[in-house]
Amino acid sequence: MAVRVGLAQLNLRLGDLDGNADMIMAAYDEAVALGADVVVFSELTVTGYPPEDLLLKPAFVEGASLALERIAQHTGSVPAVVGFPEDTGRTGPVRLWNSAAMCSDGAVRGVFRKHLLPNYAVFDEQRYFLPGTEAGPLLQIGGVQLGVSVCEDLWGPPRTADAAADDGGLPSVVGGEADTSPALAQVAMGAQLLVNLNGSPYRRGKQADREAVARTRASALGVPVVYVNQVGGQDELVFDGSSFVTDAGGNVVCRLPAFVEQVAVCDVAVAPSEHAAAAGSRGSTRAGPAGDGTSHSVLTPMLEPLDEVWQALVVATRDYVRKNGFTDVAVGLSGGIDSSAVAAIAADALGPAHVHGVSMPSRYSSEGSRTDAAQLAANLGIGFRTVSIEPAHAALAGMLDTHAGGTGAASEPADDPADAAAADLTDQNIQSRIRGVLLMALSNRHGWLVLTTGNKTETSVGYTTLYGDTAGAYAVIRDVPKLLVYELCEWRNRQGDGERIPQASLTKPPSAELRPDQRDDQSLPPYELLDPLVEAYVEGDLSAAEVVEAAGRHGADADLVHRVTRLVDIAEYKRRQSPPGPRITAKSFGKDRRMPITNFFR
Amino acid sequence: MAVRVGLAQLNLRLGDLDGNADMIMAAYDEAVALGADVVVFSELTVTGYPPEDLLLKPAFVEGASLALERIAQHTGSVPAVVGFPEDTGRTGPVRLWNSAAMCSDGAVRGVFRKHLLPNYAVFDEQRYFLPGTEAGPLLQIGGVQLGVSVCEDLWGPPRTADAAADDGGLPSVVGGEADTSPALAQVAMGAQLLVNLNGSPYRRGKQADREAVARTRASALGVPVVYVNQVGGQDELVFDGSSFVTDAGGNVVCRLPAFVEQVAVCDVAVAPSEHAAAAGSRGSTRAGPAGDGTSHSVLTPMLEPLDEVWQALVVATRDYVRKNGFTDVAVGLSGGIDSSAVAAIAADALGPAHVHGVSMPSRYSSEGSRTDAAQLAANLGIGFRTVSIEPAHAALAGMLDTHAGGTGAASEPADDPADAAAADLTDQNIQSRIRGVLLMALSNRHGWLVLTTGNKTETSVGYTTLYGDTAGAYAVIRDVPKLLVYELCEWRNRQGDGERIPQASLTKPPSAELRPDQRDDQSLPPYELLDPLVEAYVEGDLSAAEVVEAAGRHGADADLVHRVTRLVDIAEYKRRQSPPGPRITAKSFGKDRRMPITNFFR
Repeated sequence: MAVRVGLAQLNLRLGDLDGNADMIMAAYDEAVALGADVVVFSELTVTGYPPEDLLLKPAFVEGASLALERIAQHTGSVPAVVGFPEDTGRTGPVRLWNSAAMCSDGAVRGVFRKHLLPNYAVFDEQRYFLPGTEAGPLLQIGGVQLGVSVCEDLWGPPRTADAAADDGGLPSVVGGEADTSPALAQVAMGAQLLVNLNGSPYRRGKQADREAVARTRASALGVPVVYVNQVGGQDELVFDGSSFVTDAGGNVVCRLPAFVEQVAVCDVAVAPSEHAAAAGSRGSTRAGPAGDGTSHSVLTPMLEPLDEVWQALVVATRDYVRKNGFTDVAVGLSGGIDSSAVAAIAADALGPAHVHGVSMPSRYSSEGSRTDAAQLAANLGIGFRTVSIEPAHAALAGMLDTHAGGTGAASEPADDPADAAAADLTDQNIQSRIRGVLLMALSNRHGWLVLTTGNKTETSVGYTTLYGDTAGAYAVIRDVPKLLVYELCEWRNRQGDGERIPQASLTKPPSAELRPDQRDDQSLPPYELLDPLVEAYVEGDLSAAEVVEAAGRHGADADLVHRVTRLVDIAEYKRRQSPPGPRITAKSFGKDRRMPITNFFR
Repeated sequence: MAVRVGLAQLNLRLGDLDGNADMIMAAYDEAVALGADVVVFSELTVTGYPPEDLLLKPAFVEGASLALERIAQHTGSVPAVVGFPEDTGRTGPVRLWNSAAMCSDGAVRGVFRKHLLPNYAVFDEQRYFLPGTEAGPLLQIGGVQLGVSVCEDLWGPPRTADAAADDGGLPSVVGGEADTSPALAQVAMGAQLLVNLNGSPYRRGKQADREAVARTRASALGVPVVYVNQVGGQDELVFDGSSFVTDAGGNVVCRLPAFVEQVAVCDVAVAPSEHAAAAGSRGSTRAGPAGDGTSHSVLTPMLEPLDEVWQALVVATRDYVRKNGFTDVAVGLSGGIDSSAVAAIAADALGPAHVHGVSMPSRYSSEGSRTDAAQLAANLGIGFRTVSIEPAHAALAGMLDTHAGGTGAASEPADDPADAAAADLTDQNIQSRIRGVLLMALSNRHGWLVLTTGNKTETSVGYTTLYGDTAGAYAVIRDVPKLLVYELCEWRNRQGDGERIPQASLTKPPSAELRPDQRDDQSLPPYELLDPLVEAYVEGDLSAAEVVEAAGRHGADADLVHRVTRLVDIAEYKRRQSPPGPRITAKSFGKDRRMPITNFFR
């Protein structure tokens, strides 16, 4: 006995209620044409995920209800399971549930309300939703009963702040708490198949965790699990899709590709159930699952780790740019590895003709920087122009020399070392900020979005100039540590379309080139030391003392650790004013890590 | 029969566990010296409120426990009620409660765990804490029993997304839900007095709401209520203190001043209770409340509405600057009302010697702008310098003329109107951004924080230049609508220390002066129309259509409303990169309003 399940892995447009409804109906038709017995969508399909504070607007929730109504009216005998924000307080205050509607024959036949509302990491669902308490209704398709649940509901016991820090380990019983997943109750009620609607953002390694959870559930309960996730970028999140199906033994029998829209069907074997006749489901009344004798399923392999990160960055960038109404981007090219990586990602995301590289040398820029940037642009086939910042640098230095005690660029060296350091810092930041002004002027003049190029390591320690190199709309590699930037570039160069990132950019010592002979390692420890420290402090939420303990093995001493963790703390004000960028780790900056700026904890 | 209650309204330093412990012990000693029978502190006293994701660091929670231990050891027979994050999962995962410790005779004698965890508006407590379920233990002081609760616990039934939008109405039964406040159970257990620890941020009119809640509780239950709140600025929140006491009839008998640290005592009359002997309290075992025959209490009047807002802005600014280790600020002075207001607030906050006004005229600046700015600086007694932006403007215009198709400043007018508009916008933004670069250079050179000057109206509709006038550390009037800025300036001028804001700045038409003869009302509707539209759309969470309906009465037509609401939507990316500023309304930008940038909802 088999059910042909349609999986609709869509790139929804957040808040586009009518557009999403059209997309949902088209996907429904496509799956039905493929012979689906039921079509499953992702979490909050109608709105896209996550709608954030749009949910506080009653008109938004009302609009979502109307869109769902239109979708339901479109359905025939094949049920569609569609996510939507459910408001049952029409005459009183808004009371919302994160729900899945079972639609068929022109109407909503049943609704499941999400039980477990994640409120950790990037999730704020308890800000908007009340928890559901009913495991049913089950969805009946001919003689087969389906249990419907939403995302976290599959994962099991409520997760605490500790799980939040971890984001995504396997379901584990915390403090001896009972497993509260509605899946258990559904199987007890007679469900022969579990379908789960997800809005699950990407991070490295996430798919393996998801499949482990589903496999554990399926094999423990002896029922297949269908997991459907959305795809595409939404501000600081990127969704990888990777929808999949396990059989009743916990084997993954179907997997849709990561980061790609797809509507597919999968024939899922289900065991007969003695409960079926007794169940009070309001689902479809079709006679039984289609069975044309052929096996329909696709089992796309998971991406290799570096490929996966690259695709995440490409899709996040493409969607941020296009969904916000732009076609083209500008990238400041220094000849270094970070800006080279961002330009290469943008070229893959938007096509090289839509990427405009800008080299902005200063009086301190090496010849190599200019030629490496030009070589990169030639390799990628992107636009390229050079604008020397010297005239503005000279003008501003002169203005400040007169009015602000000099900057170190146009004035005599100061006698006092602290004064000299302040002058030097001022001059370095001016150069970076002139570049920010130039890129934004190109943006205003030509309608290009500016991509920023800071990696996670320098974003962590504040090795950036606010309103300078942080100026732009989207911070493509904000969550990518420096060493991973190198790995990604090397991986991209191996992909068979020739050298993308010039070898010189991969091998020369990193430098901001804001003063003569500057190199990153004059201000920062080597990245081989720094990256693990930052990861332990930021992603691991360790204290400085705990990092010292952990870092001893890597050769970092206590002074260095304390210097680095202090840098991370005091850079919070810069991060708060920096653009969003896609999350690829278990803890990115942004809503994933909500640290006070004013903070005395050391 | 009376209890002398000590109220410790402190300006805590967030995360300074040792420093806060010292402050708490000093306040305890002070209240004991005043004859207090019990000393009550604010919510999460040991950490300061809100600690945000510091709570995810186990070392932070452990440090808070150690600090509490030290405080408890310091106590004598007079109990102290101190807020702290309680972790009872020492050997396993972190499990936190938002708790109040009852400390006396050198140890923690009992702990109350907060029941109702706000997760709306600026609050994220369900991200960190588990809800308490016990109403006790009661705190026994001689023959009197006290019920201890934390903040929201006093307010009653759980509040939903709707209450979130409202933030702070009176306790109302939502959807017929039962009142779940532990106060009821505590009175049933024999509590003769309720003490409530708060971390309640300021907004306009908040104190009247708080007192209404406490008065309703007190008179309904027939017991006095003691409400203690912290004071001071913490990033985008400012706490007003305004701690108070009601008698058993619901009359406010004690009120501490708003926005000022204070330790005070209040003699609170309590009715005898037959439950007292039977109660299993672990509190103090003092023989009875002190009663020296004199009445100790202070009933500070509430501030007038404009005075209250002004103090909120002054305290928020002072604390942001000083708690982040700075003494001085720079403010760009345009001669307009907004920058004048910010400079005047800064002068009141930090002293005029610590405020540095900078006039940065462009080729389009009127003579009036320069003289008004100079007059303001003279009125306030702050530093003043003038830096013409012309050299940098000319240099950048020339660079872009060569490399980017002109800016409208240095090149021939374009034939295509769209092209001309882009060139004009580019040139306007360049001027604003040069000013941002100059202010940041002064910041780097002299160690001044930069204050930005955008009001809530222009922040809403995006009438700002990102990295230009939005560049700076703290956005003092970000939550103050334009018309309220005028009212505040006029109020400040009436305070008896002479004219602060020049009359010309109050009366001339607002202008950005970024092109010849520019005035705000060429781009925006009059503020008398605009402010109510923005309030309805942002604070009221109405849809554009609903705003049209509401606005018809004020003379705004549908086209105008749709234009304005669209401007608010598309300015989200600018707000996301703008500095924090103090919240004074029921919905400010920042963590109070979490809107997607990529957003198709119209």
